[in-house]
Amino acid sequence: MSETLAPLSQSLCFGGVQAVYAHEARETRCRMRFGLFLPPHASAGRVPVVYWLSGLTCTEENFITKAGAQRVAAELGLAIVVPDTSPRGLGFQGEADAYDFGLGAGFYVDATRAPWCDGYRMYSYVTDELPAYVAAHFPVDPERTGIFGHSMGGHGALVIAIRNRERYRSVSAFAPIVSPMRCPWGEKALAGYLGDDRDAWRAYDATALIEDRGYPDRTILVDQGTRDPFVERELKPRLLRDACARAGVALDLRMRDGYDHSYYFIATFIDEHLRFHARALDAGST
Amino acid sequence: MSETLAPLSQSLCFGGVQAVYAHEARETRCRMRFGLFLPPHASAGRVPVVYWLSGLTCTEENFITKAGAQRVAAELGLAIVVPDTSPRGLGFQGEADAYDFGLGAGFYVDATRAPWCDGYRMYSYVTDELPAYVAAHFPVDPERTGIFGHSMGGHGALVIAIRNRERYRSVSAFAPIVSPMRCPWGEKALAGYLGDDRDAWRAYDATALIEDRGYPDRTILVDQGTRDPFVERELKPRLLRDACARAGVALDLRMRDGYDHSYYFIATFIDEHLRFHARALDAGST
Repeated sequence: MSETLAPLSQSLCFGGVQAVYAHEARETRCRMRFGLFLPPHASAGRVPVVYWLSGLTCTEENFITKAGAQRVAAELGLAIVVPDTSPRGLGFQGEADAYDFGLGAGFYVDATRAPWCDGYRMYSYVTDELPAYVAAHFPVDPERTGIFGHSMGGHGALVIAIRNRERYRSVSAFAPIVSPMRCPWGEKALAGYLGDDRDAWRAYDATALIEDRGYPDRTILVDQGTRDPFVERELKPRLLRDACARAGVALDLRMRDGYDHSYYFIATFIDEHLRFHARALDAGST
Repeated sequence: MSETLAPLSQSLCFGGVQAVYAHEARETRCRMRFGLFLPPHASAGRVPVVYWLSGLTCTEENFITKAGAQRVAAELGLAIVVPDTSPRGLGFQGEADAYDFGLGAGFYVDATRAPWCDGYRMYSYVTDELPAYVAAHFPVDPERTGIFGHSMGGHGALVIAIRNRERYRSVSAFAPIVSPMRCPWGEKALAGYLGDDRDAWRAYDATALIEDRGYPDRTILVDQGTRDPFVERELKPRLLRDACARAGVALDLRMRDGYDHSYYFIATFIDEHLRFHARALDAGST
């Protein structure tokens, strides 16, 4: 672990430290920011870590300021890493034209179409490069890693966990896009980043991955508000429920009466998600 | 109570409702936004209410998204009202030139100098107009009102509570400007809004008010981080401690080792402040 890495900001919070760091990333060909919360336990040794993937338009800032996760993470001894949602500053034409493609909308894929393939590689960045960087510089235990996220980031968390089950021991999501192949946000993103071959899209579709590979011996936790304005058109939790039922995957899908798509919804139930991950990652033990 | 008032936004949060409203305000001569959290208990009758006053550069948004107050307010049955920090859109020359004067920096005074006197009346807005509006439209109990705030808003809360002890039964603050007469932020604001007669400033200086009137039979709760970059130059908790000691006012001043001036600091200790107010306001009873 390097002792010299300087945070862009850091604040004591519930006895732990909420910081923001930046590093030069190879996959995304630009400087990437990420949030890191280290609980008090991290001063005594490596702690389990959960990666949070944010939704459309977010940066590393939304979750760390709005979710209220630090209180329970400090209690449980969990680190939380929060990457940005796309490369920034590559300057590709059209990059900033829409809220749902390009900047703030990397969709956690490795793009294969030009120009996006030259940096829009958020799948590899989040799955490989960032965890290696974090483990090299901070007291987290890579053997005890979980992942969760919201909306586009819920999609990312599900896809990454299902494809890398040896590396992520737990997964949960708030209001995830469960099948980007079958919703407008997802179809736009997958066509734009990957091209028109829908077979290539299956590697980034949680329901297709469950169909193809299953997800044995673990439970997926999902919270979904019933008054989420995107539930019918974009999120479609029913498709995940059906895929899990067909594949025999344990899904704990909690429909939350009256809740919407906001961080107020996330804050309300973040506690339960953190405890879910802590149990799977043996948080509190060493 | 009007049933027709439409919120600009509202979200279910911890079983209560976090909303933002706007209304045409007389004192500030413009449309003012405010945040309102109503706990689940509000569906059964009037609940006690705490006013939160924010610091420099803030709007009604900062506290409601970052402080994590809803969880405990929902548990305790407390409503929280969060006004903006200045009028918006009056278009006075120089209004937007500095972060510490004009927009976002009303300092909770009634300005007497032109042009500011024509709308920069946040003292009367927060103390009279907004509470009357809130009590007329929402299920809060004006007989059980407390007030708290941060930095410039901590100053506002202390001043308003000391000058209106019959109306505010409890007061607390995070990192308050305790004596605007004796710090750069305060001197600039008071001179700009009130002119050079320093005697007129005393009505807006918590330590001077304590000297002049005391604050008997109640405890003031203040949290202050030791690594707050503004503590020596602007906040000066020592001046409040000394004024309270001389006047026999009960001050519970908690110096928090390693904490800074941010909402991460506020979030860490908001729970204790809400419980302090709930006790004083008999929250949970009817």
